[in-house]
Parts: sequence; C-alpha cells; structure tokens
Amino acid sequence: MKRVLMCVAYDGTNYSGFQAQDNADTIEGQLNKALSALYKAPIEVIGASRTDAGVHGLCNMVVFDMPARMPAEKVSFAINPLLPEDISIVWSKEVSDDFHPRHMLTAKTYEYHIYNDEFMPPTKRLYTYKVNRPLDEKLMDQAGKILVGEHDFKSFCSVNTTATTTVRNIISVDVRREGKEVIISVCGNGFLYNMVRIIAGTLIEVGYGKRNISDVENILKACDRTKAGPTAPACGLILSKFEFLE
Amino acid sequence: MKRVLMCVAYDGTNYSGFQAQDNADTIEGQLNKALSALYKAPIEVIGASRTDAGVHGLCNMVVFDMPARMPAEKVSFAINPLLPEDISIVWSKEVSDDFHPRHMLTAKTYEYHIYNDEFMPPTKRLYTYKVNRPLDEKLMDQAGKILVGEHDFKSFCSVNTTATTTVRNIISVDVRREGKEVIISVCGNGFLYNMVRIIAGTLIEVGYGKRNISDVENILKACDRTKAGPTAPACGLILSKFEFLE
Repeated sequence: MKRVLMCVAYDGTNYSGFQAQDNADTIEGQLNKALSALYKAPIEVIGASRTDAGVHGLCNMVVFDMPARMPAEKVSFAINPLLPEDISIVWSKEVSDDFHPRHMLTAKTYEYHIYNDEFMPPTKRLYTYKVNRPLDEKLMDQAGKILVGEHDFKSFCSVNTTATTTVRNIISVDVRREGKEVIISVCGNGFLYNMVRIIAGTLIEVGYGKRNISDVENILKACDRTKAGPTAPACGLILSKFEFLE
Repeated sequence: MKRVLMCVAYDGTNYSGFQAQDNADTIEGQLNKALSALYKAPIEVIGASRTDAGVHGLCNMVVFDMPARMPAEKVSFAINPLLPEDISIVWSKEVSDDFHPRHMLTAKTYEYHIYNDEFMPPTKRLYTYKVNRPLDEKLMDQAGKILVGEHDFKSFCSVNTTATTTVRNIISVDVRREGKEVIISVCGNGFLYNMVRIIAGTLIEVGYGKRNISDVENILKACDRTKAGPTAPACGLILSKFEFLE
C-alpha cells in the first residue's frame, strides 16, 4: 500500500461542504466514490481543510492508501474522468505511510472575493459577493494588518465551534483591488470555524466607513463574537494556496 | 404605451440560447415570462443579438412595449426580483415607439476567453475554454488583424446559416493575455452564425503553430468554411459590449 497525497480543486457551489456526510453531496464523498470505483475497494480519503458548503478550493489536500501498484503520479489522470466536472485533481504524489494532512504545520491562504458595484454580472454570482457601497480597499488593508500575528480570535469564530482553543497565528492579511473586485487574502497556519468569512464581513464594514481601524483592535481584544461584523457569504471564499511547511 | 429598452446580462450556461423556443428554456423566454407576470398581460420582447446556447451576455439589448405608467428607468428594479439569478437587467430607459434593436447600426464586441494551461480550475469551467498547448497571443493578435475591415466571411460562417449575404464589417480584433487567460476581442457591426467561435477556433490554431498568418489570409479569400479552424465551444464566448451608433 502506498499513501498518496492529492491536490484537489473544486467549485463548491453544488456541494454541502468538503467533509463527507450521510445523505448530502460533498467533495469528500465524491472523491471516496470515484476512488472506490477505480480501485474496486472501499476507500476513504483524509482531507486537510473542511471547507464549508458553497466555499471553493483551488488546492485542498487529501491522502488515501492506494490498494494497487499504479505510480502515485498517475492517480490524478486515472481519477479525473471518474469525477464530476466541478471537482478535479491537480496532481498526485507518493508520501510516507504516516503522512497526515491535519497533523502537519501548514500555511493556507484563503481569498475572499467581493464585487464592489451596484450591478454584478450574473457570470460572477457563484464566485464573488456583491457589495454596493464603495469600499476603500486601502483602509481595509490597514485594518486587516491588525490581525496579523498570534492572537485569540474568539471574536472572529462562529459560536458553533468545537475548537478547544481559539488562539491562531495569522501570517498575513492583504487587501487589493482588481477593477471592480476587492480581494481579501488571509494566510495562516490554521483557521477557526467561519474565521475568514467573519474577518471579511468585518473588513467590509471598515471599507464603507461603518467601523475604523481602532474598532478592529477593540473587536480582537474583546474575545466576543457579537462585537465583530457579520459572516460574509460562502460563495466569495476560495482556498487558494496550501503549503506543508515541514 | 412606452417602448422600453433594457440592457440584459446573463450566464448562458443553463439556457438553450437567447431566442425564445417552444419546449426549451431561453433568456428571451424568461424575460417574456417575468414581464408578463409583472404587467399581467402577455409581453414579448424584441432582442438584439440571438446568442447561442451556452454563450454569455453582459449587455444584450431588448425592447418591449410597456402597458403601464411606470417610469422606464424603474423597470429594471421591478423586473429583477422576478428573474432567475442567472439573468439580470443592468438598466432600462424609454426609447421612441419605432426603435427596433435589430434595425439600428450597432457596434458589438464579443470576447472569447481561453484558459491556457494543462489544468483549469473547476471554477473557470463555465466561462473559459481550456487549451493545453502554449499559445502565442502576439501571433494570434497579428493574425486576427487580417480580418479587420469589410470582407466576405463565408469561411467563418456555419454552413447552417440563413443569412442572405456573408459580407460583414469587422471593426477590430485584439488578442491579449491576462495571466493564464488569453482573451480574443472582436468588434463588428454584425456577425454571422458561429462567426466569432470560428475565428477563435482558427486563431487558437495560429497560437500553437498549426497555422500561420498567411494561412489566415488564404482562409478568408477561400470563402469556404472547411478551410477555417473548428468552432470553439460556446462557454468561452461572451457578448461584452453593445453600442447603438445612430
């Protein structure tokens, strides 16, 4: 048995999130189904990031133990024709038998895409969140920098969390504009439930002047979810970069 | 009765093209249904461009005669909540009673979007066509310029056309690269059936070296559809700009 690591890209629009569930269509469920069909044996992948319903991925990571002699690099070519067109394996490679994608030190980057105009073309609706009010992306960028470093992010975590600690390390927050799109890019070792979407919802309020930079400092200190902005919708979020640091 | 002109944006993925058909879901059919529901009277729009199944639009134009006293500018706000989320009215305004969008001199720009890489993220699949082989967009741009002007575009027209003449005037052809995307932009007064998709299919062959610039001159002169490249898939095409010139 070889352990195979795969990089997975997906359009999350039509799925109930990454993690396998009974009676719901998920990315992980589709991967398990396709791999089990390919190898004619029940296979369950172990995923790195359990992205929410509607969230997209360019590079989530999964491992599985392959009950065949196929070269690990060829797995992506064998499995892609068996997957629906909104899920695709970018590459596959062999890793050590004890490699576990959730037990590694990682740097993950999520991007939150905002369409900042009164009218959003329907071709953007699945991948961007429309904000009518003009956003000052430079102010948002400054406010985002407050969050960089190791902090207790309890204010930026859904109350439905099951995490044992709400301390996380954020490596960078950058906000840029590309035409009518404003993109919030957050890199960290790990994230709490809904964390990037709550950061986005808060920075959007900074962008249109409802909150200022010292408000963001106070929200972080408060360790109280009710102090931060709303959870921005799932469609704007994409897991865009994933590095194993070990 | 006021005649109202509306600018319509749509994601064509789930429709059998723009033009209304029995037993098929179309953009025009959805507009007729929503307007008829709003005004409680049967309404049929007249559309400017009959885009194909799967082709997208940022700015197609339609007119209809409004059996109500509503200000024409307000129609877009009234109708959008009645339309599916993949069709949206950008604006609406009053025009003269005899305004007909297909009897006007127009300049329309279509963009053809190519994803030029071996791997295309699933989030791009509905709006770009993947070409694995590296494309030289500068060569494609030079070859595209051959087509500018008034010519008989019979070589670039589907044999299924019903047009009485295959002479058309192309105002500009520009090919640019934006990262992994190569975008072919074609502006003209009017287009033949599948014309931009056949131009795209031909310029792609120039881009990877199967044809050169003098081949494109010869294809144009030949007035023979079999000489040109294939019809590129609908998903990559979007009607991106529309001007009435009178």
